[in-house]
Amino acid sequence: MIITLVKDADIACIDAMIDALESLDFSCQTTLGKHYTIVHVIGDTSRYDEKKLYAYPCVKSVVRIQEPYQKTQRQSLTEKTIIRVKNLEIGGREPVYIAGPCSIESLEQIESIAEMVAASEGHILRGGAFKPRTSPYDFQGFGEKALEYLSLAANKYHLVSVSEILDLNDLHLFEKYVDIIQVGARNMQNTALLKALGRASKPILLKRGFGNTVEEWLMSAEYIISHGNKNVILCERGIRTFEPSTRHTLDLAGMLYVKQISHLPVIVDPSHAAGRWDLVEGLAKASIAAGADGVMIEVHPQPERAFSDGAQALKPSRFSALVQDLKRLHKALK
Amino acid sequence: MIITLVKDADIACIDAMIDALESLDFSCQTTLGKHYTIVHVIGDTSRYDEKKLYAYPCVKSVVRIQEPYQKTQRQSLTEKTIIRVKNLEIGGREPVYIAGPCSIESLEQIESIAEMVAASEGHILRGGAFKPRTSPYDFQGFGEKALEYLSLAANKYHLVSVSEILDLNDLHLFEKYVDIIQVGARNMQNTALLKALGRASKPILLKRGFGNTVEEWLMSAEYIISHGNKNVILCERGIRTFEPSTRHTLDLAGMLYVKQISHLPVIVDPSHAAGRWDLVEGLAKASIAAGADGVMIEVHPQPERAFSDGAQALKPSRFSALVQDLKRLHKALK
Amino acid sequence: MIITLVKDADIACIDAMIDALESLDFSCQTTLGKHYTIVHVIGDTSRYDEKKLYAYPCVKSVVRIQEPYQKTQRQSLTEKTIIRVKNLEIGGREPVYIAGPCSIESLEQIESIAEMVAASEGHILRGGAFKPRTSPYDFQGFGEKALEYLSLAANKYHLVSVSEILDLNDLHLFEKYVDIIQVGARNMQNTALLKALGRASKPILLKRGFGNTVEEWLMSAEYIISHGNKNVILCERGIRTFEPSTRHTLDLAGMLYVKQISHLPVIVDPSHAAGRWDLVEGLAKASIAAGADGVMIEVHPQPERAFSDGAQALKPSRFSALVQDLKRLHKALK
Amino acid sequence: MIITLVKDADIACIDAMIDALESLDFSCQTTLGKHYTIVHVIGDTSRYDEKKLYAYPCVKSVVRIQEPYQKTQRQSLTEKTIIRVKNLEIGGREPVYIAGPCSIESLEQIESIAEMVAASEGHILRGGAFKPRTSPYDFQGFGEKALEYLSLAANKYHLVSVSEILDLNDLHLFEKYVDIIQVGARNMQNTALLKALGRASKPILLKRGFGNTVEEWLMSAEYIISHGNKNVILCERGIRTFEPSTRHTLDLAGMLYVKQISHLPVIVDPSHAAGRWDLVEGLAKASIAAGADGVMIEVHPQPERAFSDGAQALKPSRFSALVQDLKRLHKALK
Repeated sequence: MIITLVKDADIACIDAMIDALESLDFSCQTTLGKHYTIVHVIGDTSRYDEKKLYAYPCVKSVVRIQEPYQKTQRQSLTEKTIIRVKNLEIGGREPVYIAGPCSIESLEQIESIAEMVAASEGHILRGGAFKPRTSPYDFQGFGEKALEYLSLAANKYHLVSVSEILDLNDLHLFEKYVDIIQVGARNMQNTALLKALGRASKPILLKRGFGNTVEEWLMSAEYIISHGNKNVILCERGIRTFEPSTRHTLDLAGMLYVKQISHLPVIVDPSHAAGRWDLVEGLAKASIAAGADGVMIEVHPQPERAFSDGAQALKPSRFSALVQDLKRLHKALK
Repeated sequence: MIITLVKDADIACIDAMIDALESLDFSCQTTLGKHYTIVHVIGDTSRYDEKKLYAYPCVKSVVRIQEPYQKTQRQSLTEKTIIRVKNLEIGGREPVYIAGPCSIESLEQIESIAEMVAASEGHILRGGAFKPRTSPYDFQGFGEKALEYLSLAANKYHLVSVSEILDLNDLHLFEKYVDIIQVGARNMQNTALLKALGRASKPILLKRGFGNTVEEWLMSAEYIISHGNKNVILCERGIRTFEPSTRHTLDLAGMLYVKQISHLPVIVDPSHAAGRWDLVEGLAKASIAAGADGVMIEVHPQPERAFSDGAQALKPSRFSALVQDLKRLHKALK
Repeated sequence: MIITLVKDADIACIDAMIDALESLDFSCQTTLGKHYTIVHVIGDTSRYDEKKLYAYPCVKSVVRIQEPYQKTQRQSLTEKTIIRVKNLEIGGREPVYIAGPCSIESLEQIESIAEMVAASEGHILRGGAFKPRTSPYDFQGFGEKALEYLSLAANKYHLVSVSEILDLNDLHLFEKYVDIIQVGARNMQNTALLKALGRASKPILLKRGFGNTVEEWLMSAEYIISHGNKNVILCERGIRTFEPSTRHTLDLAGMLYVKQISHLPVIVDPSHAAGRWDLVEGLAKASIAAGADGVMIEVHPQPERAFSDGAQALKPSRFSALVQDLKRLHKALK
Repeated sequence: MIITLVKDADIACIDAMIDALESLDFSCQTTLGKHYTIVHVIGDTSRYDEKKLYAYPCVKSVVRIQEPYQKTQRQSLTEKTIIRVKNLEIGGREPVYIAGPCSIESLEQIESIAEMVAASEGHILRGGAFKPRTSPYDFQGFGEKALEYLSLAANKYHLVSVSEILDLNDLHLFEKYVDIIQVGARNMQNTALLKALGRASKPILLKRGFGNTVEEWLMSAEYIISHGNKNVILCERGIRTFEPSTRHTLDLAGMLYVKQISHLPVIVDPSHAAGRWDLVEGLAKASIAAGADGVMIEVHPQPERAFSDGAQALKPSRFSALVQDLKRLHKALK
């Protein structure tokens, strides 16, 4: 950690700060530059909250050298976490293809989509049972019943299932019915939920909050891992920007950067990023070509009748064709 | 609601869409423009999710005319909600001054700050018991014990108390110990929590998420109100932007706009927006001069020893002087 | 154009507004909704500045239906502009590969890079002669001499050349030496420059400003086209967001959207978006897989000795390998 | 400057980097931390482009300690530049009030507004002669004729005049007719224009670009100052964010921060930030209460007939009342 002092810093203030740091077993080394004085703090600062130091008036700026996300961070160039669910590997050689409706509307609906996903060589069936809607008047999901339908449909077609949790009190339902538990963008920093999921037995698919940095995203993964659950899959799904033509702006550079610094698998959700189906295929191809570990696509047989998010759902025939394109792209880069 | 159709839109698609809308008791009126055809949907569309319509390929764009936040919205130019807690009015003639430490560290600490807040003519004592930290390794708060200390200190000095809730299972503790329950920026769209707080008996201070629009903020207030709790205080605390010199960018125009369209009181938290104490006073003055219903300021007697967020805490003497400045400003505009 | 009126709008205000619009030969049709009254303005509104209407107090909101960028907009699903320079087609079947150094440093430097670009099957040689640096103390480019070197190097290896113009008074130099004239992100709304380039004989490569929307980008293209130069190539290069791990956030959804609504070719510059060479290859692959008409890559034989932007430059050997990957990807999608 | 090295950095790479730095007369001091090795570069690095160092693969990150804007930066806590134009002080004890129409439409129009500005105790008359419009089809201003009218109106009512320059070839006109030359947000990084204005005899009012950081804004001021013109007035006018309810988001914290680190006067333009007149008064009060050196307000006697930007213009009577409020606020804080 590197502390730059203000010009003409008060000596008593510097001494108090160094005493405080040394009482935590850090050692401090001071260097006089031509224009500024620097204090170099040596020791394991990964768990020290460097922002505290700004409370000392003698401090101009503090730069953290060590990353604060030790368990999420890749320790070597080749370290990679592969998560195994049933017979599926996530983060392995082949990208995974996840598809399904925004909301589970009936057993027939989710079974017919499951059949299509399996026929299209998809691996994971997604479907919402508890929906985090912006408006209290929008459809909120069918709850436990929907989780049960998802489970039946996934098992029937030998697919892995994933669904989003909103309330930590529902954890037992997710443990019972689904294979992977999703944390949505709006709950990425719901620390009470993250801690509870650290004690879950199922892998967690952690979406990036649309107002959150890559570092905060990794810190949320660190919450889950440090509370006991190592199986975290990251999912980039777009961030908030000033551009109004798409719902969010997909940050593929963020995805690439996370794959460099972390050992966790990273997938991409182009449907929620774009918010409009006609851009989803292009963004899915971009994601796989860039090296994502998978994509998650909203699919609905009759998007205009979907209970939610129909605007961004692909029709089944387009999804099937897309998977073939993605496979060709992945093969071209091997 | 106004729907613009794509050029050469498919007639069958238009018919299916109009049938679907009419089955919901809306009436549709079609107008041929010089370049585009428009469908005007008439009826109470405030609870209709207009994004659904994009699933019809004949739709180019949809514009909502009615606001989706009916209960949060101001119905007349003079409608205003005043929230009464003990003898205090929030949203009334005089702005309220809220102050206290980021974290409650001991009974002595919070009592000495309470004494100072009261002596400085502040009204509400804030203090964190459950802390939503970005890192799992940072101090997470002392929990119930801290709420108890807050309650003792506030009562001793005749102050109103406010503290942040993270886990809906802790609601009974907040009902027991505090006067106002805070929802933090990270949980603004934690809908499970918002629904639970709709059933609480205490007023809710709802912070704007740093990645959320004004409309989403009002929709979160609508969650609480539509679940039964009318007493919502809004709090602007800065949004995420590309500017790195402050932690967030305080959106005073957003505060002013919310005061125009909503009847709820709106206060401002300049401490979390700036992330550095040396900008807090200027932003607090700006907030009161612009017409905010109050400000919430982090105060700590020894910021460099604070367990969290010391960098943005004012020392008590500066807070006292600031309250006097704010009172002079408010008086100058009466 | 659709105008929504405020509740209880003043009749005199409405009449004045409608008179003003009708005096411009628009016709106005008023519809009473359940909650709001709508005025539908019919006629060619593409050149009318709809923001003017907000000056009428009776106006709540105005929605433009017709796009304001008529010449840039695609009139049919198949319309596409192909720009021919020497033997090269930009916007045709095959993506174009553009490479070169940030700054032209010497004739030897640019010739050796040109040789490598040609050998790697690249098509266009880029190189800066006038540099738009953030700091007045950074290297500002070698000016006309550098343009001359670029021209010599491009001709020697049968490449097309492109370089950025900063000052409209230099236009004669660019007409003399380069094949394509680049407008950089910082000058995207320098309307004096755009108007001058509307009278140029060479194609213009128009970069998107990092603080500009897609609509503003197309409006800047409209400036050039409406002043007489139809040959505009658009270039997406990342926008400003809150994410600090990359210099800007590459907006591939924006690129895809522009290709949908405009007939102009669109290429991508991943080097400036990322600001770090280790993400450039992944983003270039993403761009081509998504359907971009080309990529522009910074290349330097000794990045650490580059006069500018060495951090984002690929070494020649990596560029050669990258072009082969991009060709395989493009072929996989045919 | 502090360089952090990657783990297991290549010794040859480190040596090459240190040689390069020492050849520029910097001295380098290496410290082994527990987890990372640091190189501390000592010397005057204010004009060194630190991003260059990322081209060395051994470099993990570089932190600049010295600010790159030496001439713009405040050297002591009390240093302050006061700019004198005619009898007016900008950056002195009293804030300045600037008002006028977006576009100068006729001699009568600008004279009647000038009369009102003078009667309202305003100091500076603004008015556009060359307009930087997003659309080529919008009104572009009346050019030299308009500058002449501005000059006549300002002189008649003893006001200082300000107008925006777009094309550096028009500089002689601005030297002839106006007292202060404005650089608009879209041209903040038009370095050719900034260099030309460094040779102008008139003070420059430099608006912040809506996509630019505070540091870039100061670097643009540095361009003007380092080319010879010390009289720069900064103007905050809002930045691009994801919030759609206002045109831009006014960054008052940015204004406060600039006043801390720079000696230049800083004013605020709430009209362009808000884009809607009904928020302008609140934001103007916030600006003066926070300590801005002045505000610039768009005023038009008939906003609905304005040739441009009527939506954000105040009527004269509101402007007069606003100035009185601002004076009371300023007095309350003395």
